[in-house]
This record gives sequence, structure tokens and C-alpha cells, in this order.
Amino acid sequence: MTNSKENGGSGRLYLEDLHIGHRFTSGSHTVDEAQIKAFANQFDPQPFHLDDEAARDSLFEGLAASGWHTAAITMRLQVESGLPIAGGIIGAGGEINWPRPTRPGDVLHAESEVLEIVPSRSRPDRGMVTVRTETLNERGEVVQTLTVKIVVPRRPDML
Amino acid sequence: MTNSKENGGSGRLYLEDLHIGHRFTSGSHTVDEAQIKAFANQFDPQPFHLDDEAARDSLFEGLAASGWHTAAITMRLQVESGLPIAGGIIGAGGEINWPRPTRPGDVLHAESEVLEIVPSRSRPDRGMVTVRTETLNERGEVVQTLTVKIVVPRRPDML
Repeated sequence: MTNSKENGGSGRLYLEDLHIGHRFTSGSHTVDEAQIKAFANQFDPQPFHLDDEAARDSLFEGLAASGWHTAAITMRLQVESGLPIAGGIIGAGGEINWPRPTRPGDVLHAESEVLEIVPSRSRPDRGMVTVRTETLNERGEVVQTLTVKIVVPRRPDML
Repeated sequence: MTNSKENGGSGRLYLEDLHIGHRFTSGSHTVDEAQIKAFANQFDPQPFHLDDEAARDSLFEGLAASGWHTAAITMRLQVESGLPIAGGIIGAGGEINWPRPTRPGDVLHAESEVLEIVPSRSRPDRGMVTVRTETLNERGEVVQTLTVKIVVPRRPDML
């Protein structure tokens, strides 16, 4: 957990404010059937994301959210409360896994941990921070793991 | 490119129909400012995805789509035309990178290649196929690379 003392009260963390093992927990979001179908209609129109009956006969054995929907919800949780990085959350890429699908009624939250902090050699105003985020449902089951590299600025007054 | 001879005319490919080096090209999708802001509003509400002026002062130096928006558009392209897998596209996870952002006006398409095909030992009705997909804009610049493992069923008549 972070607190205001660590970042001078700004509520946003610079590279110097982060440490390996730093952990953050987001607020939560309840996923419902309408959200799952709306996202699928727009971005992943496959029967198991759109139709209860078709989903029952699929590998998912019931309506399941698109993995990209789970990723998008996780991003929203991070931006709103899960990862208060100065300058915002700008990811260069990473690894994503969906060990089980998000289902209607799931209450998701994100738990993040800083794994690595590497100051940039070529750009003294920033660094690259590796963050691992688990997205969990209300039963504590992991629906997504994401390990991503984020560009984090240094404190302007430290440059 | 695939053709109907490879899959008996069904238009959908089973594990036996795929080979390493198999390539697929999707149709295209034009991204505009309204789409970028609508996605950001819902899933990634950060200034550089929402506001032209704020974006100019950011690392992106102009309005940029959320990486998750690029991922979602890529999925839509794959589902509609880019990757005709029998049983649909069900990804277990993979690696994603965004070498440059998607911008308003970009015309995106996806190019995919089969890297690996591994029949399941425990489940004789399926296998795991690794597919690498590049999402490119109309200038041929790569905005996303995604290497993902997909569950692909065997032909029912081969079981």
C-alpha cells in the first residue's frame, strides 16, 4: 500500500518513490452479462462471448468475457485506483495470461507488485518499471496475470 | 493465404489444416478520434487518450489510442477475417508489444503466422497453436505484435 508521505502528498508516484516489492490494490468492478455482450459485439463477436446457449456448448461451458475485455477492465481499475504513477500508465508491452475466464457477476479487482526498476541510460528523466498485476474475482481466483513494462518519470526536482 | 481446398470448403481450419509458416491477412479497420476517445472513456481514461491538447504535452506527443484498444481492434479483425479457426479464437495468453501508438486516421490490418503446432497429449480432440500477429497501419508501421497460444480442435472426422 502507498501513502501520501511517500510521494510528498501528490498522490502520484515517481521513479524514486517506487521500490521493488511495492504493492498496490485497486478498487473493484462488477462485470455483468450486458457488459460482456456489449464488449464482444464491438470487439470479439464470437458465440461464446455473445450467446448463453452457444457458450454452453463451447470450451467455456457458459458465457465468458473476452480476454481483451478482462484486460480493458483491469486497465480501468489501474488507472482509477490501482497504480498511481506520475505521468500515467504507459505500457510498452508485456506478457498476459488468462488462466480462467471472467463470468457474469464476477467482482474483479487488481493486485499489483513492482518487480524491477531500471533507470534509463539514454533518458535521465525516466526509467522502466516492471509491474506484475493479478486480476482476481470475488472468490480470489485469478482471471488474468499481466507482467508489463511501464515508463515512469523521475521527480522533476531530482533532475 | 488460405483457400477452401485446405479445409474441405468449410472455411474454418482445424488443427490438421494448419502448418507451420501458414500466413493469414485480415481485412482493415480505420480508427478515428471518436473511437479512440470512446474506448479511453470506458476503459483507459488517461489524458493522452482523451484530449488532444493534453496528449501533445505527453510522451505520445499527440492523441494516441490505448494499447488495449489496438488489441481489441486486432481481435475484431482476426475474428472477422484474419484467422479462420474452427471453434473460434480462444487464446490462453501470450506476449504483447506496442512499438508505436495507433493514431486517429490509422488504417489497421493484421498479419498472422503460425509458429508452432502442438497436439495435446491429454486431450486427443485438440492442440495448441502459437500464432504471431502483427498489426500494421497503412504506412506498413507495426503498432502491435502479439504472440499467443490458441486452442484449436482436431477435425471431428479424424478422431
